[in-house]
Amino acid sequence: MSTSVTEELLQVHRLPDRGSRDRAVIDAILDAGMLCHLGTIRDGRPVVLPTLYGRDGDRLIVHGSAAARSLRAGAAGLPVCVTVTLIDGLVLARSGFHHSANYRSVVVHGEAQLLTDPAAKAAALEVLTEHVAPGRWAQLRPPTDGELKATTVLSVPLDHAVAKVRDGGVHDDATDLGAPVWAGVVPLSTHLGEPQPDPHLAPDLTPPTWWDRAGGPARPATSSPEEVGP
Amino acid sequence: MSTSVTEELLQVHRLPDRGSRDRAVIDAILDAGMLCHLGTIRDGRPVVLPTLYGRDGDRLIVHGSAAARSLRAGAAGLPVCVTVTLIDGLVLARSGFHHSANYRSVVVHGEAQLLTDPAAKAAALEVLTEHVAPGRWAQLRPPTDGELKATTVLSVPLDHAVAKVRDGGVHDDATDLGAPVWAGVVPLSTHLGEPQPDPHLAPDLTPPTWWDRAGGPARPATSSPEEVGP
Repeated sequence: MSTSVTEELLQVHRLPDRGSRDRAVIDAILDAGMLCHLGTIRDGRPVVLPTLYGRDGDRLIVHGSAAARSLRAGAAGLPVCVTVTLIDGLVLARSGFHHSANYRSVVVHGEAQLLTDPAAKAAALEVLTEHVAPGRWAQLRPPTDGELKATTVLSVPLDHAVAKVRDGGVHDDATDLGAPVWAGVVPLSTHLGEPQPDPHLAPDLTPPTWWDRAGGPARPATSSPEEVGP
Repeated sequence: MSTSVTEELLQVHRLPDRGSRDRAVIDAILDAGMLCHLGTIRDGRPVVLPTLYGRDGDRLIVHGSAAARSLRAGAAGLPVCVTVTLIDGLVLARSGFHHSANYRSVVVHGEAQLLTDPAAKAAALEVLTEHVAPGRWAQLRPPTDGELKATTVLSVPLDHAVAKVRDGGVHDDATDLGAPVWAGVVPLSTHLGEPQPDPHLAPDLTPPTWWDRAGGPARPATSSPEEVGP
């Protein structure tokens, strides 16, 4: 039996000082990510599937085709948990216990609505496409009715979202500081590589500029090593 | 009411040719990843939390502290879904519909066992630490009894695991091939940056070598752009 989202569910129980309900913090993480993990319940079991998403103001647009068989949403919506995680670094402490990762994550609890109206669906797909590839939607032909029917799109409100962030350096016990082992943070970041054109591409078409961090706007999904403090 | 893992749950329904139950495929993805998303059911709702993991032969070792409040595992274990996803590229097609991502993912369904025996727990933490930071465990002092008690570690068998992989290039409709828009794959990869030493570090300690892809063994978690075919 599904229940509504409780305040208790949104509490960050472990290391609560890393948690935040601040929408600016939440939105920044959601806008920097690209991949989410969509959790549903199917046949009484948890199911977690990766998928792409975009943020449209106060709601997440989630590409739900991979999870379509879980999506028997009624009028009340489907209980979901959508989680976005960006890893920024490995924290190598002087004890196994204090090893950690620097990360930014958002967990969204809510009732997902299946979008069915073709215009609403097309608008949501625009959000999703623009999130992953800024500026792309205007270059593409509009989706056909058949394509819209074949695509499952979910809308999840951001009313019940919580961010959790770990950054900074190593937190070792004072008694371990003299241990003869290197300790610190190894930054992790995601990079876009040189676009690989489709073999059928006409020669005068140029790739989008956002892939090139040096020459164009950086993809918001990339996190620079500078963000990980020592 | 929780149910057992069914064959139906393991079917890859969407684009089933991308699915694989081959343990070599599954293990390679699990060994290349570092972050998993752990799905559980709490108060009748799905909960998805990011955490670190390692593979120990036929089982996953999952750091469960973040999800500890979900973990009321009885003798039968706790129903979980553990998903690992590596994104390798953005697939920019000539229609919104055929936009995609290249990725490698593994979904593991099973009953997680809470490890309670201190020796078993320490061995599992070694697996987890070595997975994230190869060679590290031998450099660290052993965990204390208090640290072992304060750490929640789960073991999840790999009996019910399925991989799904999307690679290669754009799959456009033939009628779209003449569209005046660039199409192709933009590779995505994860990189380790220069280690940032803890300020309290003695000067003669050197960072692990695996962070340096040029000078040392590459971190298995990094996926090189070369893996994404055109």
